[in-house]
Order: sequence, then C-alpha cells, then structure tokens
Amino acid sequence: MSRSSLQENIYITIFGTHTPAGKNFDIALIVTILASITVLMLGSISNISAQWGEVFFWMEWGFTLVFTIEYLLRLYSSPKPAAYARSFYGIVDLLAILPTYLVFLFPTAHYLMVIRLLRVMRIFRVLKLMRYLQDSNLLLRSLMQSSRKILIFFTTVAVLVTVFGSLMFVIEGPEHGFTSIPYSIYWAIVTLTTVGYGDVVPQTDLGKALASFTMLMGYSIIAVPTGIITAEISQQSQLHRTLVKCMNCSRAGHEPDAVFCKHCGSQLAEPDDRVVQTAEG
Amino acid sequence: MSRSSLQENIYITIFGTHTPAGKNFDIALIVTILASITVLMLGSISNISAQWGEVFFWMEWGFTLVFTIEYLLRLYSSPKPAAYARSFYGIVDLLAILPTYLVFLFPTAHYLMVIRLLRVMRIFRVLKLMRYLQDSNLLLRSLMQSSRKILIFFTTVAVLVTVFGSLMFVIEGPEHGFTSIPYSIYWAIVTLTTVGYGDVVPQTDLGKALASFTMLMGYSIIAVPTGIITAEISQQSQLHRTLVKCMNCSRAGHEPDAVFCKHCGSQLAEPDDRVVQTAEG
Amino acid sequence: MSRSSLQENIYITIFGTHTPAGKNFDIALIVTILASITVLMLGSISNISAQWGEVFFWMEWGFTLVFTIEYLLRLYSSPKPAAYARSFYGIVDLLAILPTYLVFLFPTAHYLMVIRLLRVMRIFRVLKLMRYLQDSNLLLRSLMQSSRKILIFFTTVAVLVTVFGSLMFVIEGPEHGFTSIPYSIYWAIVTLTTVGYGDVVPQTDLGKALASFTMLMGYSIIAVPTGIITAEISQQSQLHRTLVKCMNCSRAGHEPDAVFCKHCGSQLAEPDDRVVQTAEG
Amino acid sequence: MSRSSLQENIYITIFGTHTPAGKNFDIALIVTILASITVLMLGSISNISAQWGEVFFWMEWGFTLVFTIEYLLRLYSSPKPAAYARSFYGIVDLLAILPTYLVFLFPTAHYLMVIRLLRVMRIFRVLKLMRYLQDSNLLLRSLMQSSRKILIFFTTVAVLVTVFGSLMFVIEGPEHGFTSIPYSIYWAIVTLTTVGYGDVVPQTDLGKALASFTMLMGYSIIAVPTGIITAEISQQSQLHRTLVKCMNCSRAGHEPDAVFCKHCGSQLAEPDDRVVQTAEG
Repeated sequence: MSRSSLQENIYITIFGTHTPAGKNFDIALIVTILASITVLMLGSISNISAQWGEVFFWMEWGFTLVFTIEYLLRLYSSPKPAAYARSFYGIVDLLAILPTYLVFLFPTAHYLMVIRLLRVMRIFRVLKLMRYLQDSNLLLRSLMQSSRKILIFFTTVAVLVTVFGSLMFVIEGPEHGFTSIPYSIYWAIVTLTTVGYGDVVPQTDLGKALASFTMLMGYSIIAVPTGIITAEISQQSQLHRTLVKCMNCSRAGHEPDAVFCKHCGSQLAEPDDRVVQTAEG
Repeated sequence: MSRSSLQENIYITIFGTHTPAGKNFDIALIVTILASITVLMLGSISNISAQWGEVFFWMEWGFTLVFTIEYLLRLYSSPKPAAYARSFYGIVDLLAILPTYLVFLFPTAHYLMVIRLLRVMRIFRVLKLMRYLQDSNLLLRSLMQSSRKILIFFTTVAVLVTVFGSLMFVIEGPEHGFTSIPYSIYWAIVTLTTVGYGDVVPQTDLGKALASFTMLMGYSIIAVPTGIITAEISQQSQLHRTLVKCMNCSRAGHEPDAVFCKHCGSQLAEPDDRVVQTAEG
Repeated sequence: MSRSSLQENIYITIFGTHTPAGKNFDIALIVTILASITVLMLGSISNISAQWGEVFFWMEWGFTLVFTIEYLLRLYSSPKPAAYARSFYGIVDLLAILPTYLVFLFPTAHYLMVIRLLRVMRIFRVLKLMRYLQDSNLLLRSLMQSSRKILIFFTTVAVLVTVFGSLMFVIEGPEHGFTSIPYSIYWAIVTLTTVGYGDVVPQTDLGKALASFTMLMGYSIIAVPTGIITAEISQQSQLHRTLVKCMNCSRAGHEPDAVFCKHCGSQLAEPDDRVVQTAEG
Repeated sequence: MSRSSLQENIYITIFGTHTPAGKNFDIALIVTILASITVLMLGSISNISAQWGEVFFWMEWGFTLVFTIEYLLRLYSSPKPAAYARSFYGIVDLLAILPTYLVFLFPTAHYLMVIRLLRVMRIFRVLKLMRYLQDSNLLLRSLMQSSRKILIFFTTVAVLVTVFGSLMFVIEGPEHGFTSIPYSIYWAIVTLTTVGYGDVVPQTDLGKALASFTMLMGYSIIAVPTGIITAEISQQSQLHRTLVKCMNCSRAGHEPDAVFCKHCGSQLAEPDDRVVQTAEG
C-alpha cells in the first residue's frame, strides 16, 4: 500500500459512513447540498432574485468552493481516482461545480438558453443525495430482476399510445386540435397514464368513445407493473428472510420482525445491516 | 393507588371502550364531533351563514362547552394527566376548544387571516375521530415496518421532480408559464402523481416530450410503494395467522376465516380481538 | 311441496342457469336489457330523440311489457315470493318497470326534475345484469373479508380530505375560488384521488406547496387499499387451491392450472365450478 | 417434406430468431419499422411535411417495397401460407403495405377522411414489433388466467359508470353541460379512471357530492385489477420456480436468482430460456 495514511484517513471520512467523522461529514454535505438547492430555487423567482441577487451570487460561490474542495479531496484520497472520476457519482460531483465556472468564463454568452441551462444545471447537485440512498438494495434488486418484464411493459405501452394516438388523429384531425400524429400520441400518453391535463380533448362522439376506451385500458394496465414489482418484492423479501442468519449460532429462517435469535437468544443484526450482510456473502 | 373511585369510574367510561357506559360515551362523542364539523362546514357557506349565523354561533358555544367538559374530565381522571396533555390526543382535544375561546378573547383582531385560521382550526376536531381507528394495528404495523423503504421512495420522488421540474424550467421558461424553478417543480409533482390539473402545460415540442416521459415514469413508479406495502401486508397477515392461538387448547395455525378451533372445536376469538391479543403477547 | 310442476318448471328456467331453456332465457333477457339501455341512451340525445322519438316510445313500452311479464313470472314461480320481492334483485326488477308506469300516470307532472328522474331511473335496469356476475365468489369474498380494513382506510381518507380542504380554505380563501369548506373538501378529494379536474386550483405559493403535499400523499396511500385487497385475493386463491378436491379420489391440493387429478388421473371440475363447490361444502 | 431447401433457409432466417442471419434480419426489420413510423409521424406535422414532403413520399415507397418483399417471402417460405395469411401477424403484415397501394390506386378520392385513414393506417406497422415481445409468456399467461376475473371487473365498471353517469344527467342536466346520457357516462369514465380532463365538471352542490363519491370509488376499485393480476403473477412465478429444472441432474426447485444448480453445480439455463423450456414440457 503506497497510499499515505493521510489519504487513507480522508478516504474513510469522505467515502465511509460508519466512523463519527464520516457521519459528521455526510450530515454537513447533505445540509450544504440542500442549502445550495434552496438558494438556486429562490434565485429563480424574479422578485426575490431582484432583492437578494447579490447575496445569492456570493453564497453560490461559497457552495461551489465547498463542492470543489470535496471533489478534489475525493480525487486525492480515492485509491482509484480515474475510476472514481468516470463513475456516476464522480460525474455528478463534477457537474455540481462545472456550471458556475463556465458561467464565470463566458459571462457575456449570447444565447439566453445556454446561460439558463448552465444556471439550472447546478440543481443536479440534488443527485449527490442519491449516494445516501444506495443501501436501498432490496428495492433496486427488485427493479433489476424485473427490468426485462418492465421493458416489455413499456414497449406494449409505446405500441398502444401510437395506435390510439394515430386513430385519434384520423377521427378528430387538426380541426379539433389534434394537429399531428406526435401531438396525438402526446394526448394518448396524457390519457393512458390518467394524467388528463385537459389541454386537448376529443370533440366528436367517436373520439369520446375511443378516449373512454383508452382511459379504461390505462386504468387497468397500471395493474401490470404493480403486479410485477409486488411479486418481485415479495419474493426478494422472502428470500432475504430465509438468508438472515444469527451471528452467534448461524441458524437462519428468522421472522422479519425478530430481534433475538429463537434458537440461542442472542441479539440479531439490525434489519438494515442484515441486507448488506446478505449481499456480501 | 391514591386515585378516588370516581376518578377510576370516569376513566373507565371515557378512556375505555368495553363497558356499556364507555360505548355510549363513545357514540355520543362521535355524534357530537360530526355535528360540530357539519355546523362548521355549513357556516363557511356564505348564504347559509347569513341566514343561520346566530343559530350556528350558539351551537358552536354548546359544542365547545361539551368538548371543554370532556377535556377537563380526561385531565381529572387520567392516572397521568401531564402525559395525557402532552400526548397526540391530548393536544387534539385542547385544539378542539382553544380556537373558540381565542376568537372570543380577540373579537376585533386586525388580521383576517388569523380570524379565519382560528375559525377553521376547529375543524381539526375531526382528528378526535382517529382515536376510534387506533386498533387498526395491522395497517399501522405494515406502514411502520415499511417506513424506511417509503422514505427512500419519497426521497427518490423528490429528486425526480426536482430534476424534471428544473429541466422543464430550462426548456419552457417563464415565457410559457413556467415562471420559476419551485413552480416548475409544482408542475412536475402535478404530472408525476398523474393529477394533471392542466393549469400549466408544456407548449413546446421538447417540453411535451419531457412531459410524456415524466407521465410514463409517474405511471410506473406508483407500482413501487404499492409493491412495498402489499408485500408487507401479506407478510403481516401470514405472521398473524400463524400466531392466532385457540384460547382453549393453545394450538396455532388457524385459517383466516376459521370460527372454531380445528383441534378441539371451541370457538376462536373474533378476528379483531385476535389482533389485539397478538400484539399483547 | 304444494307447488305445481308448472311453477317448478318456470322456476328452473328463470332462476336457474344450467338447463338449456334457462340458458336461452338468460341470453334473451341480457339482450333485452342491453337493447333497452341502448334505446334509453339514444333517446337522451336531443337530435336523435327528435327524429326517432315515437319509435323509442313504443319500443320502451315493449321492453316494459317484457320486464313486467318477467317480474310476474318470478313472483309466481318463486318458492318464497315475499322474500324475492324484498331481495336486492326483486327491488331491481320492480324498479325496472315502475318508472314507465309512473310517467304514464302523471304525464303532466309539473316538476321537470321528477320527469327526468323517472325517465333516467329506467337505466338502473343495468343492475339486472349484476345477477349474471354473482358467481364472482372469490372477488366478493375478498372484498367482504377486507371490509373492515377498507372502512378504516376510508375513514382515514375522509379525515385527511377534511383537514387538507380546511387548511386550503384558510390559505386560499374565497378570493381564489375556494368559496367554502365543503367546496375546499371537494377540491381535496379531486386532488387526493389524482383526478385533477383543474376547475379550481391553488393560486398562492403556500397553497401550491400544500397541494403538492396532498398529491404526494394521494399518490402513496393508493397503495394501501391495493395492498389490502391483493393480500386478501392471494390468500383466498391459495385457500381455494387447498380446497379443490378431486371428484374421484377426494384428494386436494391441486395446482391452479391442473386439468387432471395428479393422483388418480380423472378429470378435475372446471375452475369456475370448483369455486361453487368450495362454497357449498 | 416437399419444401425446397431454399424455402427452409428463408423460413429459418425470417421466422426464426436463433441463427445469426435470423438475428440480423430481425434487427434490420425493427430498424426499418421504426424509421417508417418516424417518417410517417414527421409527415403529419404540416410545416415539416411542406418542406420534406417529396423526400418522405419516396422514402414511403421504399419502406412499402421492403415490407412487400418481406410479406411475399413469408408467404413463400411458410410451411402453411394460408394459415400465416390468416394469422394475426399475417394480417398485420398485409395492413402494413396495403394502404400505400390503395392511396396510389385512388389518388383523387373524394372523402378526406378515407385518405387520412389510409395514410395513418400505415402506422399500424408498429404492431409488427409485437412479434418480438411474444416470448413474454409469464405476463400473457397471467393475463389469460385472470381473464374471467378481469371480465367481471370490467362489467362491474361498466355498470357503475352507467349508473353514475345517468344520476349525473338527472342532477346536472343539459343546462350544466351534461347534454345526454352517453356524454354523462363519458364524464363518469373520465372521473372514475381518475383521468379528470376537466372539460365537463359538476356545477351544483349535489353534483359535486356525487362526483366526490365517484372519485373515491374509482380511487379504491383500481385496487381490484391490481390485486387480481398481482396474485396471478405471484402464483405463476412461484409455479415457474418449482418447475425450473437443472439440465444436468434434473432436480427442480431452484431459487429465482440461482445461476448454478445447488445439487450438482452445473450452470442453469438463462432465466428467459427457462420460461420457454417450462412451456414446452
């Protein structure tokens, strides 16, 4: 191990979550992220921005400084800096600081859209929070296990909205607001997902009949992804239960709300630690 | 026990639900709560209020008197008055009477909002009804057991609406009604939850594409909380079934709709009492 | 048995579903019901009614005659006519013919509402169709078994919409369209159930924040009834499976898609007949 | 077998999916279908169509040529051409090419609707994609197994919307936008499915009360199809798991995420192949 003990200590504090220093670091970071997002949101409201613009400007530089230091420390302390930089969180951490510097470099950018994009991109700092949800193993595993079925479901939905949208385009046509096929498909999505904005609605009787059919279909097929994910979660948690082992006597099969081993009476691991344990071996 | 037998009797009547007097008290209280809420609602409709205002005024004082007596009796008879006063129901009981007295004390309050708040706060008397739902052990336990997963789900949803809302702010901008990031996030919530008021809708093609994606995502991820809670309820009710014991021969494992013990033939406890039993031992 | 064999034969034809005559009667009745409803619906469209009004009038009398004969035959052939007359289907059968005669008796009724009500009430003939869904034992039993949990769920929803609606009345007030507490509760129901008409929407920032919270809550708690009913249906169908017995060797525990008994090889009852069988013993 | 080896080879390439040539053919066909649909959609947007109309016209002929050749090859190579031509995919393949020729034959059709229908019908080429979803056995089997329960559910929903719609027609009447019973039923569907366009909403207090009840009912009964399908999917996947056999030692009962046989250690079939295997024997 050619890494200095300084690197090792920083690594444990920044990437780890189990030491007191690591926990404090995490809490401080979460607070900074939330504060930074709040400032950004308030800054987008025109009358608040008019009054507090300058304060927000300096606070933004403060946040960027903090996130820059965090990014550099992560790069410095990581055993594999290149892998970190190319990982999902490495990119998120970089995107959290880049826009501020870019706005600084090109203060007189001609395109309003670019400026707005750069300013708003900073809100993706919210993705830094995802790091703290990553031990949601059960949920993620359920989704992964079901990913193929979910893909089939989505393709079916895509085919359905294309067919319903196109039929509606024929029935209602541009004269009733269904100006093109893509726009009619947008209507079909709005209807099938039961969102129902009401910005474009069928006018003719035949159109209303087709819309009714689309709604009833949307109302029913929502049951399919629910069924898939429920079945998967049930199976995962049953599986999990079978795998929970007592640390003392190594016997498995404990009830999900058991706190003590029913064979030897020693305390079982906390439910959340059990998940991690299961995943590791 | 230094408590008087009067205190004890009142306690059993007011807090208990199993004696005939206790049941009558509960029914009378529920009727009073519902009547009080009805009067409040009717009083908020301007033309009814104009005609019946005075009647409602005196009825309101009647209800407040009843709830005040109830509150004082609870304080008097409770073995731990301070604990009661600080409990959820203690606060709800106090909030049910406080606003009427406050309006009486400050009849010429300058701020309309305060008056309206005080008047409407009385409707929180509806929370007094929650007391009678508290033996909904299975539901509550399922929610509690899943609370960590539900928190993860909500954080994910919060991150999603922030990202989608911000992107929409960039794409559509103030010129199409997306005036600020918080307002765009409001749009994202309206869309992701499939509510779809239609008060602000995307105007550009890119915006409509993003909106379609948001809807499909909202349509699918609703499956996740459903899956979590279903899996939990299934597990809880299976667990429950295993734990149902015959009062006579103490053997467990009865079918959920069994009325008699299949081993000794004696009658089993009522399904709802079984839950309580399980919770107690 | 003092009943004539005519009565018995009519009874088997009309109330039964297993004889060829009974099946033909059922099909004829279903067709008549659907035709009658179609005529009623078309008659409510003003320009169709203007043209075909007289034809519809005579068809309506035809349908009423058929349903009257059916009702009288049911009364005549039923072993317990009084019990039939007071049963759900007895009342539905009476309501299917009564309005036509009432309109005939009071042709110059002064109140438009009453006429309209009488005319439209005939559409409740659709309830006669429910008779043919009555072997949906599994579904109904699941709902019955869960009825207590569903009641708790509905009371919770009622409390929630009262609280959210009242808060919204305070925050937005009559000046933003929330004219009274009942109307604000209507808004809360529209929002919590994710219907989202958009006829009344929050205008203030605080109102939008509360609306967002209401939506997210509605989006999540829909998982609760789903979970309850899913758990119940799963349990019922598992239970059912255990109870399916081979008619030949009387052994139970067959797979849900099994067609032949795995022990003796004789054919198993049709899945739908199995349900009936289970219910009977 | 009187079929030529050319026919056999084409058959394996076109209908099969396991040979490299078959896979390449499938990918090429999917790309062509998606390209063809994209061109059709873009062509329906009036300003894009004005500029690129001629390019789209020739591309459309190109796509039609490709699909015509594909159709003829399928007819030629299929062991039972008549059966193919009358199958779902045979009809879809024919419908994918027919409209273009029909438009060519009747270029001066008088009815705009017919022209539009013929043009848009080409979008049903999207149904050709369904072919590649057909190994979604588990999903389809779950739906099939539940089809009777789903039919009961739909009939119940149909009865409910008829009753609610008719009541609303009586309560609100043509003067508040509920112009006829069919239109009121359309409103009931929009409300019960929680779509909520908001194009027609109740105006009277009684109407709002009934609408609230409809919404709450819609909000709850969505749980029923979800419960049915979830229970079915759970059962199917449990059944499936029991049936997964190790190819080497033929022992069943492997965990759903097992990769190796727990008895002999040899690799298990891929999860998706397992489904096919199960279906075959």
